[in-house]
Amino acid sequence: MNVKTNHRATVFIGGAVGRWRVDAMQAVAGPALASVSRVAVVGDAEHPCAGAWSLTGVPSYVRYVERREREELRALQAPLARAEATCAALIPIRKSEAWWELTQEARRDIFEARSHHIANSMRFLPGIARQLYHSRDLGEPFDFLTWFEFAPAYRAAFEELVCELRSTEEWTFVTREIDIRLLLE
Amino acid sequence: MNVKTNHRATVFIGGAVGRWRVDAMQAVAGPALASVSRVAVVGDAEHPCAGAWSLTGVPSYVRYVERREREELRALQAPLARAEATCAALIPIRKSEAWWELTQEARRDIFEARSHHIANSMRFLPGIARQLYHSRDLGEPFDFLTWFEFAPAYRAAFEELVCELRSTEEWTFVTREIDIRLLLE
Repeated sequence: MNVKTNHRATVFIGGAVGRWRVDAMQAVAGPALASVSRVAVVGDAEHPCAGAWSLTGVPSYVRYVERREREELRALQAPLARAEATCAALIPIRKSEAWWELTQEARRDIFEARSHHIANSMRFLPGIARQLYHSRDLGEPFDFLTWFEFAPAYRAAFEELVCELRSTEEWTFVTREIDIRLLLE
Repeated sequence: MNVKTNHRATVFIGGAVGRWRVDAMQAVAGPALASVSRVAVVGDAEHPCAGAWSLTGVPSYVRYVERREREELRALQAPLARAEATCAALIPIRKSEAWWELTQEARRDIFEARSHHIANSMRFLPGIARQLYHSRDLGEPFDFLTWFEFAPAYRAAFEELVCELRSTEEWTFVTREIDIRLLLE
């Protein structure tokens, strides 16, 4: 059992406390997570509260984005924690073993050439800020924790973004997905 | 502090116990690790003994290897724990922030097109078995734990392999490296 602190890690704790109130929670694929009323987002060193569940991820280095795309992303994207971004979504995702058995080039091909993950997401910048956390190597139940923040005016755009992602070839590899909508209140 | 067990993880514990006796330990770059007499290799769930240090890594999915290369590697490579492989090397490595700031394509370009990491290593298969463990996302002091196993007859070949790797462009990004040679006795 690892009792070392992972200073890179962010922990999402579902329970009765935390800045974010749960507005809706839905198991899109695979087993649900226990229903909770609030989510706290903390560093691994803090871990202040017990909850019904906790999910840990690391905002790791880029795996698929190419240089030109990264420059565009950096020019367009918004930071987290903007005052107006009072809506958020935490969408933990697990992909199949078939996905992880693919080589890097095959994953990149499905991710961008055929699913247009980066290009489609870019259309929603800077309104919808996002952060990807990697969990797979931490032995977590999910492979990724995807996090989105936006102002209430972008709610419809966010539905469109999520809908588009779920209709891609990449998403056929998703075996577990929970959609947790949050409000800063 | 994360007290969950990471079932994917392997832990190398340097201390007074363990199957592997330390034959030599050298800090090639950056600060040394405390000298120890033995190394135990355990799963994260076991973690049976306290040591002077412990290093954790995950044998993760492939990051740079392309399909044709992976097929060649799979055809050639030897499994770990062969009876005759009584020599091993544990070489933990940390790479610079400049490396991690590169995009995937730039890292792949340095890794294979310019450093021939895969092609050079393939020459030493199946005599020298190897396993790469990823540590960076675990918040560990090293980014990778590289592990090699070979019969005593391959000692000279292993020196050649290590020498070649250290002379590559990829290795100019290595900021910390410890070379730990082990014997099964």
